[in-house]
Amino acid sequence: MYDKRFMNKAIELAIDNVKNGTGGPFGAVVVKDGEIISACGNTVTTSNDATAHAEINAIREACRKLSAYQLNGCEIYASCEPCPMCLGAIYWARPDKLYYASNQDDAAEVGFDDSFIYHEITLPHQQRSIPFIRHSEPLSGKEFKLWKESSTKKPY
Amino acid sequence: MYDKRFMNKAIELAIDNVKNGTGGPFGAVVVKDGEIISACGNTVTTSNDATAHAEINAIREACRKLSAYQLNGCEIYASCEPCPMCLGAIYWARPDKLYYASNQDDAAEVGFDDSFIYHEITLPHQQRSIPFIRHSEPLSGKEFKLWKESSTKKPY
Repeated sequence: MYDKRFMNKAIELAIDNVKNGTGGPFGAVVVKDGEIISACGNTVTTSNDATAHAEINAIREACRKLSAYQLNGCEIYASCEPCPMCLGAIYWARPDKLYYASNQDDAAEVGFDDSFIYHEITLPHQQRSIPFIRHSEPLSGKEFKLWKESSTKKPY
Repeated sequence: MYDKRFMNKAIELAIDNVKNGTGGPFGAVVVKDGEIISACGNTVTTSNDATAHAEINAIREACRKLSAYQLNGCEIYASCEPCPMCLGAIYWARPDKLYYASNQDDAAEVGFDDSFIYHEITLPHQQRSIPFIRHSEPLSGKEFKLWKESSTKKPY
């Protein structure tokens, strides 16, 4: 069930992030059974990591704390609607629910144009601003064949 | 310019990953000026990290090695077409180009249904399998106002 204390915590992390110069104006909190498992701000510019959005940081830390690669039974509170990278991460982590406060349009107004990436996803590869080019090699596909045949694999 | 040595390296990482039980059958290599900056396999299940796809691992390591949060001038070689999370990460990291060998359909055949997430992105929030629910709070938006007014912010 939604609890505004956790959303306010996510927003406070975003505010502190700007005040302290730690990264972009975003925060995220992972909650399980009414307890905070992880609470992180965006650290892209201070940790030199293009992937260090608040949600990614919070998912990674929650996984580490729970010694799990999926977040079943968890809920994520994000100060802002997730970008496509974070949306993908949320689907792989499989929390029960995501709550967010600000939305894409609010973020776009201060220079974070996630909607650009949302649009690029829908384009054919050759029309994307970063070209996605397929080059198959004879070796390609062997990894999938081995995976399919493996009796010890750990699906995720 | 495409260099098949780097693609074969990415595919070999994927193959080794299955053989060694290190993670899913995926590898990625970041290249700059003809040199490999990072070369990583997927480590979701062994590092307990839902976000530890090959491309994310390779982007994070390349950022660390280059002390940069963007990968301008770099090219990424991926053994398989990136999932939406990795596509998002690639857009944030801004390499010049992405090359991939296998595609979404090949991955789906062995159980990695990235197309499910690609489809979910296009759905209205209330129709998604993981609910995305908006709850604004009075504090919400203050972080963006501060960001907009900040004279010391570091955009990314």
